[in-house]
Amino acid sequence: MTKDYVVGIDIGGQSAKIGIVNRKGEILAQKSISTKMSDSEEFILLLCNTIRELSKAFGLENINGVGVGAPSSNYYTGDMVNATNVEWGRGKTVHIAAEISKKLDGLKVTVTNDANAAALGEKMYGVAKQIDNYIYITLGTGVGSGIVIDGKLLYGSDGFAGELGHTCAIKGGRDCGCGRKGCLETYVSASGVARTAKEMISNSGSTSLLSSVYQMKNEITSKDVYDAAEQGDLLALEIFKYTGRVMGEKFADFIPFSAPEAIILFGGLSKAHKYFMADLLKAMNENVVFLWKDKVKVLLSSLKESDAAILGASALAW
Amino acid sequence: MTKDYVVGIDIGGQSAKIGIVNRKGEILAQKSISTKMSDSEEFILLLCNTIRELSKAFGLENINGVGVGAPSSNYYTGDMVNATNVEWGRGKTVHIAAEISKKLDGLKVTVTNDANAAALGEKMYGVAKQIDNYIYITLGTGVGSGIVIDGKLLYGSDGFAGELGHTCAIKGGRDCGCGRKGCLETYVSASGVARTAKEMISNSGSTSLLSSVYQMKNEITSKDVYDAAEQGDLLALEIFKYTGRVMGEKFADFIPFSAPEAIILFGGLSKAHKYFMADLLKAMNENVVFLWKDKVKVLLSSLKESDAAILGASALAW
Repeated sequence: MTKDYVVGIDIGGQSAKIGIVNRKGEILAQKSISTKMSDSEEFILLLCNTIRELSKAFGLENINGVGVGAPSSNYYTGDMVNATNVEWGRGKTVHIAAEISKKLDGLKVTVTNDANAAALGEKMYGVAKQIDNYIYITLGTGVGSGIVIDGKLLYGSDGFAGELGHTCAIKGGRDCGCGRKGCLETYVSASGVARTAKEMISNSGSTSLLSSVYQMKNEITSKDVYDAAEQGDLLALEIFKYTGRVMGEKFADFIPFSAPEAIILFGGLSKAHKYFMADLLKAMNENVVFLWKDKVKVLLSSLKESDAAILGASALAW
Repeated sequence: MTKDYVVGIDIGGQSAKIGIVNRKGEILAQKSISTKMSDSEEFILLLCNTIRELSKAFGLENINGVGVGAPSSNYYTGDMVNATNVEWGRGKTVHIAAEISKKLDGLKVTVTNDANAAALGEKMYGVAKQIDNYIYITLGTGVGSGIVIDGKLLYGSDGFAGELGHTCAIKGGRDCGCGRKGCLETYVSASGVARTAKEMISNSGSTSLLSSVYQMKNEITSKDVYDAAEQGDLLALEIFKYTGRVMGEKFADFIPFSAPEAIILFGGLSKAHKYFMADLLKAMNENVVFLWKDKVKVLLSSLKESDAAILGASALAW
């Protein structure tokens, strides 16, 4: 018989969110910890201590299992393999499922790609409830993806299926953390938007609100671009339009693979949708083969960002 | 109770092959008819007459059903939608399943993409017997694909999944019959190789065996390129090397989607594998994200070309 609670964990480049979830999919307690440390053992110790602390009120003996969504993570092996956006995961294989389980008295730990976890959460509680074929794109520090076919996550032969952030958007384009050039992730993630901003500021002769911000801070983030767009800054608006076009052109290439009913966007950058969606749809429909012209919806996640991944990850633990 | 025989049909740009298949997957009788006519009704009449003729020895009443593999065809609707490489299918929707069934006393007719049919045939009788996750690429007049996930064909939300021939290989590249530019099909099909040959001959200052052939015939086919390569013609060899590179670069982009164990090549052009395989593998492994570097096999179909599609199509009819 399964027990009453599960733990759902969402590991990202900046932080990890941990939640205790009941059978109804309600997050009863949650906490966030930093992932900005170089030692994976240190992180896992902090994580397991946090789980113990959160579980106290429920009793660790009443926890059915732990589900983890983490970048570059493998459902079959329980490993996190060279997660380029996580400091302690870069360039190495972390046996994350086994390590957590060991520190939590052998509790069953199931791991998947963070985007897969969010895609699952969206299916159970979000905008994908009635959709059985979709491509889920997470626009965070990097770009992740989870592909759902006939209502089920696609894992592929090795558990790594759905790494669309590392398909080529611009041949010979920007250097990516994965060692390649031109990956989609280098253009349409939060960091990709910041890179576009820097490029466009240096290429643009005229001054703008955004270029002043850059001059002042000597740095620029996707949040700065968003704030400038909110002020009507033309350069900031052009940055989002460009981001939308790159997404649309690449989505046009994903569609003939799995013929999804929808592509669903999730993550920080998707909040700027009003600034890139029109260009995304235009580029997607101009570039996709006629079979799917004007037929595939692009939807926004209806879940709170932290909740989707925690809930999706927790679903693995039942 | 199912009856003893099925009909398997493979429709291509040049011809359609029709076979009567028994439960063991043996093709007991088969015939080929031309598809080079502009009227779909004329084709379907010829097809159905041929089926009746072939079935005579077995009795039409002993035929369990008809399976059809045809380009741009839809498993869910039974329609063939703008099959750009088939004269009578271009620019229109042909209700191929319904039309055949009507002319064959209501026999059940199931249709799928020709590449899907061949992929199924390979799974049952060919090199994919033991492989559950693969991408099947047919290199014929055009480029088709069938994607197998956990042993099953991927149809997607609308039945059209797996149209990888119409993903973009070269941005802004060659005009494709589908109305777009740069489709994979315009480079790595038989006609794509012929186009590469024409381009390279005009760009190359020096003469070669192949350029002489072109001058003489004022036309060139992939067969001419193959024959010249067999004679050691350097230009012909370079054409295949280029074809391999285009394939490899694009395959590198397919792999992160479904994490296949193998990509399987089928169709006329795959017979030239010795001239393009090394460059294909090099480009694929150089361009794929590290998770799959040197991990995905590229295999050749082990079935006779006509048999794979007939057998795969026939499998639909049981």
